[in-house]
Amino acid sequence: MTATIAKGLEGVLFTESKLTFINGTEGILTHLGIPIQEWAEKSTFEELSFALLHGKLPTSEELAKFDAELRANREVPAELLRAIASYPKGAHPMQALRTAVSHLGLLDSQAEDTSAEGRYAIGVRMIAQFSTIIAAIARAQDGQDVVAPRADLTHAGNFLYMLKGHEPTPEEARLFDIALILHADHGMNASTFTAIATASTLSDMYSSITSAIGALKGPLHGGANEAVMDMLDEIGTVENAVSYITHKLDNKEKIMGVGHRVYKYFDPRSRVLREYAAFVSEKQGKSHYYQILETIEKEIVERLGGKGIYPNVDFYSGVVYSDLGIKKSYFTPIFGLARISGWVASVIEYTDNNRLLRPDAVYTGAKDQHYVEIAQR
Amino acid sequence: MTATIAKGLEGVLFTESKLTFINGTEGILTHLGIPIQEWAEKSTFEELSFALLHGKLPTSEELAKFDAELRANREVPAELLRAIASYPKGAHPMQALRTAVSHLGLLDSQAEDTSAEGRYAIGVRMIAQFSTIIAAIARAQDGQDVVAPRADLTHAGNFLYMLKGHEPTPEEARLFDIALILHADHGMNASTFTAIATASTLSDMYSSITSAIGALKGPLHGGANEAVMDMLDEIGTVENAVSYITHKLDNKEKIMGVGHRVYKYFDPRSRVLREYAAFVSEKQGKSHYYQILETIEKEIVERLGGKGIYPNVDFYSGVVYSDLGIKKSYFTPIFGLARISGWVASVIEYTDNNRLLRPDAVYTGAKDQHYVEIAQR
Repeated sequence: MTATIAKGLEGVLFTESKLTFINGTEGILTHLGIPIQEWAEKSTFEELSFALLHGKLPTSEELAKFDAELRANREVPAELLRAIASYPKGAHPMQALRTAVSHLGLLDSQAEDTSAEGRYAIGVRMIAQFSTIIAAIARAQDGQDVVAPRADLTHAGNFLYMLKGHEPTPEEARLFDIALILHADHGMNASTFTAIATASTLSDMYSSITSAIGALKGPLHGGANEAVMDMLDEIGTVENAVSYITHKLDNKEKIMGVGHRVYKYFDPRSRVLREYAAFVSEKQGKSHYYQILETIEKEIVERLGGKGIYPNVDFYSGVVYSDLGIKKSYFTPIFGLARISGWVASVIEYTDNNRLLRPDAVYTGAKDQHYVEIAQR
Repeated sequence: MTATIAKGLEGVLFTESKLTFINGTEGILTHLGIPIQEWAEKSTFEELSFALLHGKLPTSEELAKFDAELRANREVPAELLRAIASYPKGAHPMQALRTAVSHLGLLDSQAEDTSAEGRYAIGVRMIAQFSTIIAAIARAQDGQDVVAPRADLTHAGNFLYMLKGHEPTPEEARLFDIALILHADHGMNASTFTAIATASTLSDMYSSITSAIGALKGPLHGGANEAVMDMLDEIGTVENAVSYITHKLDNKEKIMGVGHRVYKYFDPRSRVLREYAAFVSEKQGKSHYYQILETIEKEIVERLGGKGIYPNVDFYSGVVYSDLGIKKSYFTPIFGLARISGWVASVIEYTDNNRLLRPDAVYTGAKDQHYVEIAQR
């Protein structure tokens, strides 16, 4: 038997979706048909979240109502904050986030509502509460008091406020908002797919999102921008950049933040982030991180561009977060802070027309065996 | 464009596996090529777990060592027991299990070891600790003191001891052991697949198992035997059985515990369980649950057997658990207590030759749209 195995399920189509379109060859990413560049330039994370959940741009009234709902749901139960405070110091932020979100489900008396309306209501609460949970974990792990959310700030602004304990500048809040927009959804990536796989048994939203966090945690997914920063720290100075990359390329070693399963051209998100990273760097004086990236991007595009290998979104996002004063170990939770909207919208879309996910494996083990008594082995 | 969609990924082969072979048309299930009936009759859950993890039957010394390792790892951190005690009364046992296992990862300083050896070591600990966690949740939710594990009992016997606070009879322990054997692995079912999807990002074992618990929780997966018991309670008496089922069948309504995505003949596990359920019932006097099942099985096989629809494993497992004095709401956690071995073995096997899981969706949404200013909408 020569069965064809779809390794990594690459190219396998398993459902329909109206949310996100990606053309990797031309470097195109759209949500509801609108290019990611326009979302980044003109929209907000709140508006994009509404659009993903409702399949359309909101009217002023709809957006105001949705935004008010998010603001009203920022608080989390005191019991959850106590649990977060009890997590051991040095805990992996994604293990903490996974545990806290699972715990939030335990405390939600509506958790078992798996109707479309129930999933939506939980989803909106989770979009709001994710930022409170992540900020609380970061501060508790740092031995600092948890900062309560403020309802008068934007989603992005309030997160930075809770994380750092002081209000961000409008530019900082907007830059972070753009980073959230760029990461909000990206088709059937591994964490969204894992959320859907969980939901396909008609399990609850908290189970789906807990699964997604677990998948996002892996270094082949959410961990990549942290790995880019590790690389930048290893390179150290702008002067070292070219020789470091040349050495890697000559030895055919993997370079972090470069290449993508889907994109064979510039990841459009990387272009937007590069632009804003440049803007921030110009204003504040170019960070040496940014200068290293500029230098190695040139080398990479020259030597690998012909093979369809270009810098991806992770190449620049770490530097943007770092410039915003966010620690490296919180880059992946922040990826989750953005992707929660895509997870929630994708789970609702899939379960609306649900089918249990159950692929198969080719059996390559022994056949026609019998149990042998232990004394005879 | 007419893209072919593999709905539910049915029939899609995504990897190789040496663990489990299923022939649904003939009702065959083997682990390492050995029929499930032989495992049930001659082996133990400990031995099958070793076999799944190592790909071979153990020698006496290997089994003794593996068993000793399981016994030595039954304790869980006091901090986790305190967390479990703090879960609100009335919590969903699977939400509690998901949260507790995620929390266990947070407390394990080796959690981030994603080498094959690291995954194995964590996996063995989790197989041992799962039973302590589930028993602790059940007792805490019941307002009872948690019972510490005993190292002198078998895996199955110790679980029943911790759950009920007194030692089970050898027959009870053995019956429960057989139920664990029958549920230990079942190819690429939704929870195992979700565990693999999570692991495919090279995330840690705790993330994989937490995801699997979330998937198992769904009524289309682990929740089915609970639904069978609900049906039995609805039927109430043996006298009502035939008319209840006839009515359902005439109206083409779904009957719980009947039919299976894979099996188009008797699920071999249902045959083994039926036999043991009959044995227990004979000894203790036939439970009315068992009599109802016998009655409706006859009707179902007569009317649906020709269409490849037969009772599945969930049809009998609930009655066995119920006869062992286990509450309906703990049936799904107990499914997890068995399946943990399959999850761990499957994740280790897959990550040994890992490929990130990233299927795709057919985009059916709007194209070539532009962002419209909010005042113009």
